[in-house]
Amino acid sequence: MDGMKIAIQGSTGSFHHLAALRWFGESIEIVPCETFLGVFQALADLEADHAICAVENSLYGSINEVYDLLLAFKYPIVGELPEHIHQQLIGLPGADVSQISRVYSHPVALNQCREFLAEHLPAAEKIEYHDTAEAVALIKQLDNPTYAAIAGHAAAAHHGMQILQENIEDERTNFTRFLILDPSASEVAGANKASLILRTSHAPGALYRALGVFANLGINLTKLHSRPIRGQVWKYQFFIDIEADQRQLDTALSELSDLGCEVTILGHYKAAEEIEVD
Amino acid sequence: MDGMKIAIQGSTGSFHHLAALRWFGESIEIVPCETFLGVFQALADLEADHAICAVENSLYGSINEVYDLLLAFKYPIVGELPEHIHQQLIGLPGADVSQISRVYSHPVALNQCREFLAEHLPAAEKIEYHDTAEAVALIKQLDNPTYAAIAGHAAAAHHGMQILQENIEDERTNFTRFLILDPSASEVAGANKASLILRTSHAPGALYRALGVFANLGINLTKLHSRPIRGQVWKYQFFIDIEADQRQLDTALSELSDLGCEVTILGHYKAAEEIEVD
Repeated sequence: MDGMKIAIQGSTGSFHHLAALRWFGESIEIVPCETFLGVFQALADLEADHAICAVENSLYGSINEVYDLLLAFKYPIVGELPEHIHQQLIGLPGADVSQISRVYSHPVALNQCREFLAEHLPAAEKIEYHDTAEAVALIKQLDNPTYAAIAGHAAAAHHGMQILQENIEDERTNFTRFLILDPSASEVAGANKASLILRTSHAPGALYRALGVFANLGINLTKLHSRPIRGQVWKYQFFIDIEADQRQLDTALSELSDLGCEVTILGHYKAAEEIEVD
Repeated sequence: MDGMKIAIQGSTGSFHHLAALRWFGESIEIVPCETFLGVFQALADLEADHAICAVENSLYGSINEVYDLLLAFKYPIVGELPEHIHQQLIGLPGADVSQISRVYSHPVALNQCREFLAEHLPAAEKIEYHDTAEAVALIKQLDNPTYAAIAGHAAAAHHGMQILQENIEDERTNFTRFLILDPSASEVAGANKASLILRTSHAPGALYRALGVFANLGINLTKLHSRPIRGQVWKYQFFIDIEADQRQLDTALSELSDLGCEVTILGHYKAAEEIEVD
């Protein structure tokens, strides 16, 4: 996939960059974007061919903004990639953990290291930044040995900064799931997983009956995430991942339609291999 | 409730402060906390008698951190209060909207004004701050007419700052739901709503069967929100709100237990009156 342009949230050395290299190979060109909205916009503006985008983390949970963007843009999901995430406390060469007064990082990364920060750096300011790798670039530029960033190994190496404390995430089982988006997608061979948005009527039991469609067809639900419906106070739509081949998916959609549910298919793709916790 | 100490996230003039005044009356003493964790900690440390805490917004969705804290601390929920939220763009007296280069606010407030900011202040930096009212205090202190904050009317009035643009939230139906927590709670008379945490087995159809308990008892589900279970990759627990009296609740709990579900009751309280959109 030589020269393919891949939109990512973040920059060189970010977790998105590593995920892009793993999925697409080494010869891609990344299109770095400051925000998740920027990633979807890069696809809309034809500045990138594909995007790879984090959608949930096993500690932080779902990234609501990404779910809202998946709904707004409806770019087909053509694959998923789970990555084992290790966070590093990174500072200037020679810096001392006990002297750190500020920690910069992406809010998801700060959240993954909540317990470490509370225990080891309770007095340090935690400052949210738009990207982990860029937070490393920032502390390099600020050149203050009491400032640190949280990011991956690759970001420290890329910017020539020092890892002050390794693997500071609160849990070893810290995985981020990335989705691959392809605006010009055709059918994915061997697809066995689908991502849907389900809107039921608001009658009592409506969600129960909708989930019954999947249960009765023997379709496993791997994820259910609710998001508010804008303009309808305390009413929700459901982002659902199911394990289903084309025939099961078609049957489920037809039965859900009979129940009066609105369903939007965000993608039908191959599920990632089961995760091994190393 | 004279002199009662109420822990809130934020400070004088914040939306939490207004919600506290509405629920408890004018003669309370607020215990301002920088973070949601601080609010729960204030109850743990007996620095406050009660807390009032935002749990979801009709545009932003659920506040994941608060759900995690409800689970961690398990302080009884004794009531709920929906508040209609209007956001104001606030600056120094005489400031000009077109000259604004930075906008400070709480991430939830920034999110509620996403479209306004994209349309009117696309080039301005959006800087996340721990509290709306404190963001107003900050721009007052920084004394730079190109800096603005997003907060409510009360914060502008409290700090003597100017509203540059009124009601900039992206939707008129912008409500925040607050929960009232009382560590020494006894039974709430006339309770008709319960908040639960449900963990099912991870067998296919387990969630469907659990929701069947509510559906078969004629119990309406008003909310279902999933959060990851820490240490179990891609496994979720469900925060569920149901409309149920004591008898219905007891029956449902017994049937869920028969299905092998683990249920934690976070509170049984009176549902708020239905919301009128003004």
